[in-house]
Amino acid sequence: MIISKGELDQMEIRKKVQLATSLPGAKPICLVGTKSQAGVENLAPFSSITHLGSNPLLIGMVTRPDTVERHTLQNILDSKAWTLNHITEEFLQAAHQCSAKYPGGVSEFEATGLTAHYEAGGFAPFVAESPVKFSLELEEVIDIKSNGTKLIVGSVQQIILPDVALEASGHLDLSGLGCLASTALDTYFSIQEIGRLPYARPE
Amino acid sequence: MIISKGELDQMEIRKKVQLATSLPGAKPICLVGTKSQAGVENLAPFSSITHLGSNPLLIGMVTRPDTVERHTLQNILDSKAWTLNHITEEFLQAAHQCSAKYPGGVSEFEATGLTAHYEAGGFAPFVAESPVKFSLELEEVIDIKSNGTKLIVGSVQQIILPDVALEASGHLDLSGLGCLASTALDTYFSIQEIGRLPYARPE
Repeated sequence: MIISKGELDQMEIRKKVQLATSLPGAKPICLVGTKSQAGVENLAPFSSITHLGSNPLLIGMVTRPDTVERHTLQNILDSKAWTLNHITEEFLQAAHQCSAKYPGGVSEFEATGLTAHYEAGGFAPFVAESPVKFSLELEEVIDIKSNGTKLIVGSVQQIILPDVALEASGHLDLSGLGCLASTALDTYFSIQEIGRLPYARPE
Repeated sequence: MIISKGELDQMEIRKKVQLATSLPGAKPICLVGTKSQAGVENLAPFSSITHLGSNPLLIGMVTRPDTVERHTLQNILDSKAWTLNHITEEFLQAAHQCSAKYPGGVSEFEATGLTAHYEAGGFAPFVAESPVKFSLELEEVIDIKSNGTKLIVGSVQQIILPDVALEASGHLDLSGLGCLASTALDTYFSIQEIGRLPYARPE
């Protein structure tokens, strides 16, 4: 079937949101850990996370002003610091529950039973249950004029992971660690590595 | 283990690139289809694809000026048009081969044997072998100052997919379609849906 832009414009809004969020494919899913100036710890699931560069190691994520992500954005603007924590099936229910719209004074750690972990000198909390987690420092916030969203760009400060997960090549065994992928804010996938292909050259 | 920013800065460059590109998690993998003003069709694999908004349906992708993606970027700037084509295991080898740095006059369709497909009125080629594909129109190109990359923002014009893949809810059955995920420009994953969780509310 072919769905035209006109048909998309006419589509019932919940159906369109569901289609729009699954269309680009399976994405990462991480809990973003932040802390307010008043000391309230915050967790929110984000899936719009992407690699922007390796040298320095820059990661981008997209935020909308009108969702639970607003606490996350404000905390990042105030403290310049956040963590990204990969989600596994073992704590998926608690991680998903972090998408609920709790009032400002409530910490998602307390609400869901997840455990905050701090490294010396770090402001933002890590999620202890997460096998791969890293902290970032704010580099820039970019306005996306097309729809009023923002791209938050951070440089990676510290990576915490099991020794066995990092291969000599630098490859991280995400499927072995049980890291999930997601779409549509409600659908979660396990991932299985099916192959690593050599650097391609013209034949 | 903990890897500090200082250790990252000192890491051998290939190892760092591998770590940096797997760190954010499993991402979508699509072939970007474009055509030059001279009529040369181009295909390039992109993994930095993200949902920016549902109403209108906006998709972003990140490009670097110094890679095979440069043909893609130039073609998009010239024509304002491109397609995104999900990759499955059936044509993974050919899709991966599109990352090779072919000279400007060579079409990756010819080089890899993939089949161009056009819809009436469309400028950019789709990949016939792809089960889920969609065309976009350029909305804006945003400079990411932190490292000189660009975020290309497009609005979805047309979606082509099998009737059975679109559920009444708008949910797209990506794992049923065999759509892959990827990291690190060389590693590919199959995905298996493990659950859909209800909208979360504070308890």
